[in-house]
Amino acid sequence: MSRWEADGRGRLERSALALYGERGFDHTTVAEIAKRAGVTERTFFRHFADKREVLFPPEGALYLQELLVGAVAHAPVSVAPLDAVAAGLEAVGAPLQERRALARQRAAIIAATPELRERELIKLTAWSAALADTLRQRGLTDAAARLTAEVAIAVFRSAFDRWIEDTNDRDFPRLVRESLDQLKAFTAGE
Amino acid sequence: MSRWEADGRGRLERSALALYGERGFDHTTVAEIAKRAGVTERTFFRHFADKREVLFPPEGALYLQELLVGAVAHAPVSVAPLDAVAAGLEAVGAPLQERRALARQRAAIIAATPELRERELIKLTAWSAALADTLRQRGLTDAAARLTAEVAIAVFRSAFDRWIEDTNDRDFPRLVRESLDQLKAFTAGE
Repeated sequence: MSRWEADGRGRLERSALALYGERGFDHTTVAEIAKRAGVTERTFFRHFADKREVLFPPEGALYLQELLVGAVAHAPVSVAPLDAVAAGLEAVGAPLQERRALARQRAAIIAATPELRERELIKLTAWSAALADTLRQRGLTDAAARLTAEVAIAVFRSAFDRWIEDTNDRDFPRLVRESLDQLKAFTAGE
Repeated sequence: MSRWEADGRGRLERSALALYGERGFDHTTVAEIAKRAGVTERTFFRHFADKREVLFPPEGALYLQELLVGAVAHAPVSVAPLDAVAAGLEAVGAPLQERRALARQRAAIIAATPELRERELIKLTAWSAALADTLRQRGLTDAAARLTAEVAIAVFRSAFDRWIEDTNDRDFPRLVRESLDQLKAFTAGE
């Protein structure tokens, strides 16, 4: 990909997010996004299959899923499942952290649009399934692997929501650790 | 509602589940469901807005949500949040337990149809939001309430999946307690 193309993609993404925020996802057209970015519709479709894909690029979700699962798979066997999962969630946090402003814009658009909320839930379900597979390979029973994976996604969502809303700009890995500590305190009956 | 109508509804539900299982949700029409139940299409639409509503009756989801939230709201303040949540999940288990065969049919149909999987995820998200509200009213911080609610849904999903698949016919409340015990063991680092 040339530098121009890479830049075109970034401009398209920023234009799309701005328009979705201003007039709503449902009321924005590809033509308007392309116009604001100063490119043709044809260029838009070279980067994205449709206007939803700007918010859910397949390679983006897969990259984060691989970071998550990879960190869990590579944690030493001596590490407890929930701590291996914490390492995975922190790994996902690093690239998110670099795009915090865009992530906030994106989260507000998704929260406002039922179709996009569904898509986001499905993405997290895919992460949960991939995580459960990896935990089974670490020797957990099927039931334990699925429960741990579901709880990991719960912790991710909790930390992510706080990260989006946080006015103190605390970083994502820190919020993951706080959520996990809170969970540990609760389950210990505190 | 007359007894005949109540019975018509049950027949329609069983006919719909049988057809969805045989030929798939997407390939079943309301006309076919009505025919198998021995009623008119008009009767179908007196009970259900569309063929999806057979699987997701609004009053059914609301009833379970109220059982869940009600049990949490009425747990003594001295009860730890996660144990209050466990009481809620066990309360949801009771009516499910009475419909285990139907619940299994329903779960298989939902698993096979992306549109229905999305709908199911959205239902659980609504439960999570209602649960978080109730936990905030019990004095939890916003972050703690949301995390506990998300974890509760994770435990529910884990117990529900095992309940659907269980060949030993263990009951739902027992599987909820097992999932919670497992979670406690994990978070304690075992």
